[in-house]
Amino acid sequence: MKPLDLTADVVSLTAALVDAPSVSGDEEVLADAVEAALRAQAPALEVVRSGNAVLARTNLGRPTRVLLAGHLDTVPIADNVPSRREGPLLHGCGTVDMKSTDAVFLHLAASVADPVHDVTLVFYDCEEVEATRNGLGRIERELPDWLAADLAVLGEPTDGLVEAGCQGTMRVRVTTSGVRAHSARSWLGRNAIHGAGAVLRVLEDYLPRDVVIDGCTYREGLNAVKIVGGVAGNVVPDVCEVDVNFRFAPDRSAAQAEAHVREVLAGLDADVVLTDMSPGALPGLGSAAAQGFVTAAGGTVRAKYGWTDVSRFSALGIPALNYGPGDPNLAHTRDEHVVVAKIVECEAVLRRYLTTP
Amino acid sequence: MKPLDLTADVVSLTAALVDAPSVSGDEEVLADAVEAALRAQAPALEVVRSGNAVLARTNLGRPTRVLLAGHLDTVPIADNVPSRREGPLLHGCGTVDMKSTDAVFLHLAASVADPVHDVTLVFYDCEEVEATRNGLGRIERELPDWLAADLAVLGEPTDGLVEAGCQGTMRVRVTTSGVRAHSARSWLGRNAIHGAGAVLRVLEDYLPRDVVIDGCTYREGLNAVKIVGGVAGNVVPDVCEVDVNFRFAPDRSAAQAEAHVREVLAGLDADVVLTDMSPGALPGLGSAAAQGFVTAAGGTVRAKYGWTDVSRFSALGIPALNYGPGDPNLAHTRDEHVVVAKIVECEAVLRRYLTTP
Repeated sequence: MKPLDLTADVVSLTAALVDAPSVSGDEEVLADAVEAALRAQAPALEVVRSGNAVLARTNLGRPTRVLLAGHLDTVPIADNVPSRREGPLLHGCGTVDMKSTDAVFLHLAASVADPVHDVTLVFYDCEEVEATRNGLGRIERELPDWLAADLAVLGEPTDGLVEAGCQGTMRVRVTTSGVRAHSARSWLGRNAIHGAGAVLRVLEDYLPRDVVIDGCTYREGLNAVKIVGGVAGNVVPDVCEVDVNFRFAPDRSAAQAEAHVREVLAGLDADVVLTDMSPGALPGLGSAAAQGFVTAAGGTVRAKYGWTDVSRFSALGIPALNYGPGDPNLAHTRDEHVVVAKIVECEAVLRRYLTTP
Repeated sequence: MKPLDLTADVVSLTAALVDAPSVSGDEEVLADAVEAALRAQAPALEVVRSGNAVLARTNLGRPTRVLLAGHLDTVPIADNVPSRREGPLLHGCGTVDMKSTDAVFLHLAASVADPVHDVTLVFYDCEEVEATRNGLGRIERELPDWLAADLAVLGEPTDGLVEAGCQGTMRVRVTTSGVRAHSARSWLGRNAIHGAGAVLRVLEDYLPRDVVIDGCTYREGLNAVKIVGGVAGNVVPDVCEVDVNFRFAPDRSAAQAEAHVREVLAGLDADVVLTDMSPGALPGLGSAAAQGFVTAAGGTVRAKYGWTDVSRFSALGIPALNYGPGDPNLAHTRDEHVVVAKIVECEAVLRRYLTTP
């Protein structure tokens, strides 16, 4: 690919990043270009490489350090590369999630010579796939000192608003059992699908909490996301499985969230097995570094509902915010596109934050 | 295959039939052997061929005609051919369903020279597969006069008891709808799986009827036999489908059965679509021909719970009974086997019926 020009405007730079396909696992070409551009165009930065991730930082001895993290990978391309500019919009895979934020971070790295905070940049791989492949997890294991910071800003699409922390997410598989029988002699069996009715009733009647933390409202939700049961059209089924997803506010720990779900489902004639757990992240807005960022962004902050990698920073004790120009509802869609003015606005906010004493 | 010896004892003849594989659609070799044997060893009979079915009848001008029907096909072989004799048991695919009854019918055809009833024998194909391929259905369309009779005895396994008529069976697909949403913002959606809870509750609370007809008790049953819902682990699902099987007593017509199911499910926020309908068969025990058979079999008669081809005869106005030596619970199993004494007993009952004025 052509070398990246980090001094170009953030919209052109976003387009250049989108035009370098980097589906998860296939980020090497783009990571090479990012590394080369940072070494050439931001020579004051210390740069290291970790697999298909590129890390860079200032070492200016500032009292605070802010970490700007963006993943380089995208979901699979859906006939939406290369990028396409249409009036106020830039279309293409990654325009929202999250090469527009990557472009802002890269442009600032090459154009803010004297930031008031030390800055760490993390451009990482494999965020859109299973957690075990996540590049940020690898960096945490292999280069832990690179993640030290007073505030982490994760470039997830937030429509240009600051979204603090994130909800946790967990799944349980709820299995009801019965006795198989020919459906012509159903009284010899016990119908496991009918047994799942009680499970669904509990979910239907569940009243989720709204929790306010640091001024952000986290709405919880408990939902069946899958149900499967049945043997054949003439058989009373002996097993029915319901997969239940609990999205929980970050005031619950993983253990507390699991205990809550088990309590909600207690008393049902069903087995409950935990199949997935990703703890949430507290907003951490109490810190001066976080408050400074919120102020630079205009003072508005809301809760992040989806689970994001901010929880990794939260687990390290680092306040973490989500912030990016894209509309999260357009992420992963064929029609993914970003309002270019939002990219410019995002750049202005971050520049203000990095340069205002 | 070796020619069939219809004068052999019914156990040896069952073994010979089992040793000629005849999975549905592949009955030609066996049908050829049955046809050749009937023509050679029961020369008084009028014999016709219809596809892989063989029909034979006496034309003695008797006041009553009894039709003996057995299918020649089996479900797929499961390492259980050839047959294997172990003490009182004969093992093998078809020993129960229903080559043991076929053997009794064939042996009687060759050994009862002067029956008190005219006799029609129907050995047919493709009973174990979709109804559109059923050989008896083809005969009904192409050779309808061959099905005229005062009583039909269908050789389905009944453990040597007379089972009268049969239940009907129908299926509906019950679909609940919702609104898809990300499960992190579940309040923007409406969960179709949760909606299915009300459907399951109705099924769970349903009180099935017991209906006594001609002294036979038919127990009904309404069961979910399949449930499927779910889009992905992080999505509130917008569709859930429940397949419901209603097994109904033969005092309900097809239309009445459907109306009943629709009434039971009325008021639910769900679509109900009929996907399958096979009407039941009244026992028809009021006829002299049927009573004579029940008496010959020892006087005991019970309802047939599974759906069988007797309903085809019932629809033609012909009283129809199920009668065969095998245990229906062993049909279609890898360990399919028959108690050989039951085959002999079945032969004795039918011989008594065909020869007692």
